[in-house]
Amino acid sequence: MSAVLLSGKELARTIKQKAHQEARDLEADGFHPSLAVVVATDDGSTHWYVRSIERAAEGTGISCRIVDLGPDATAQILVSVLQDLSEDSSIHGIILQTPLPPGVAADKLVGHITPEKDVDGANPSSLGRLAVGLPSFAPATARAVIEILDHFDIPLAGRNVVVIGRSAVVGKPLSLLLLERDAAVTVCHSRSGPLERYTRSADVVVVAAGRTGLLNGTHLSSGAVVIDVGTNVLPDGSLVGDVDEDSVRGVAAALTPVPGGVGSVTTSLLLLHTTEAARERSRALVRGSAG
Amino acid sequence: MSAVLLSGKELARTIKQKAHQEARDLEADGFHPSLAVVVATDDGSTHWYVRSIERAAEGTGISCRIVDLGPDATAQILVSVLQDLSEDSSIHGIILQTPLPPGVAADKLVGHITPEKDVDGANPSSLGRLAVGLPSFAPATARAVIEILDHFDIPLAGRNVVVIGRSAVVGKPLSLLLLERDAAVTVCHSRSGPLERYTRSADVVVVAAGRTGLLNGTHLSSGAVVIDVGTNVLPDGSLVGDVDEDSVRGVAAALTPVPGGVGSVTTSLLLLHTTEAARERSRALVRGSAG
Repeated sequence: MSAVLLSGKELARTIKQKAHQEARDLEADGFHPSLAVVVATDDGSTHWYVRSIERAAEGTGISCRIVDLGPDATAQILVSVLQDLSEDSSIHGIILQTPLPPGVAADKLVGHITPEKDVDGANPSSLGRLAVGLPSFAPATARAVIEILDHFDIPLAGRNVVVIGRSAVVGKPLSLLLLERDAAVTVCHSRSGPLERYTRSADVVVVAAGRTGLLNGTHLSSGAVVIDVGTNVLPDGSLVGDVDEDSVRGVAAALTPVPGGVGSVTTSLLLLHTTEAARERSRALVRGSAG
Repeated sequence: MSAVLLSGKELARTIKQKAHQEARDLEADGFHPSLAVVVATDDGSTHWYVRSIERAAEGTGISCRIVDLGPDATAQILVSVLQDLSEDSSIHGIILQTPLPPGVAADKLVGHITPEKDVDGANPSSLGRLAVGLPSFAPATARAVIEILDHFDIPLAGRNVVVIGRSAVVGKPLSLLLLERDAAVTVCHSRSGPLERYTRSADVVVVAAGRTGLLNGTHLSSGAVVIDVGTNVLPDGSLVGDVDEDSVRGVAAALTPVPGGVGSVTTSLLLLHTTEAARERSRALVRGSAG
């Protein structure tokens, strides 16, 4: 037995096409969707990633403004830039890219991204709104997990879903999205004891811990679906997830690959969120001028 | 075998004493802590409950202003009152009491309680801040569960804790508090399938579903600790929880009674939160005058 590989590529293409169509529709209404990415590092792989967002945005009809503040940017400068972008009517989506300069904490900054433009769901208010069911953007990675499960018709209602990892960017928002889909949701983490106590009875396991080889076949029951959110860079530069792929493939029914799984869907969702934010803004303007 | 009853009364007294001491200390600094409760209903039991908060506050050295807007208050009036109270420097804590008039949704209003005064953690921003570990008030009921577990030295780190109920006022914030305490947390609910699939392996079960008799002894393993957050009023006017007490007492190691369990701790935490909010405000004033 070998697990089916759940590639995110076709889904990523579909979402990008949807974003592109929405961008064209907005353009026809005289409205040009636009994304700003704030960067404050000289880390090469971050710049490579940001350029990949820029290329994807421009291929989708979305302008992308990279605001590069350099590796010495202070928290004060970052706050002021995020506030300006929040007020700038030509910008519809804002991403604050990590890593930030040493000593600058993202959680002190993301509250300055206005929730309407918070396309990566970084502002705690966005998470709170998600929790109470108000309109808000979920972090793109968390939504990507749900979109992949839906794309492959994996049911969630009434299922036992185990999330490994309790971060504010994946584990916690994902658990909220899964609850909204009527799953029973267990969140475990590095201090919750033996993983298999929870994962052995899971229908779906989502691993988002950032630890190479954390989940292996002995943790699972036969037939589980495994979503690997990990992105770990090995010394040789290659990218691997949190799953010990060889052993999991022998037990699980299905598994997302890394790369080519969740990550490939995430960027396309950032673009879709940007068109959704622009659409919301254009509606608000119509309502404003009608009122 | 019969479960130990975990009464909340002694703990409630201790917390009230702590709030009282803090109120006296604030008073000595010329600072008078004050709580506002906004009411918009003619429901008798709600008025009875609000008066019980008022009595408890005044017995603890905290002023309590009941803002009774009557059962016909509009959303617009409520928003304006919550905004005024948020700006009123003589008020340190704000509670919006439910039920609200028909057609007025609490979730559209609570965003107008400034997080600094949101002593019952009702604003989605407070929940978001809780999720990312920023200072904020948890809903008093959710915190009451943690305080009771701590009071009786029931360990949480590495334990399997099952929360039944996914509300924004109990289930979701409680699951965040439990994760912060290093528990593995499972949230199940009315649509997640058979309860016993999760509760049978739980070390601690918290039931907050609002359904009389929902949890019984057959759902549990011997030795589980059960926290009953339910408050259901029977036709004869008596108050019962979500637990079938007779059958659970034969299986569980410990159980909170209703009344006299979680509920008795909740009000005292509202008072403690109010003194904490007043203390924070007094510190900010000192910082302001020093700077």
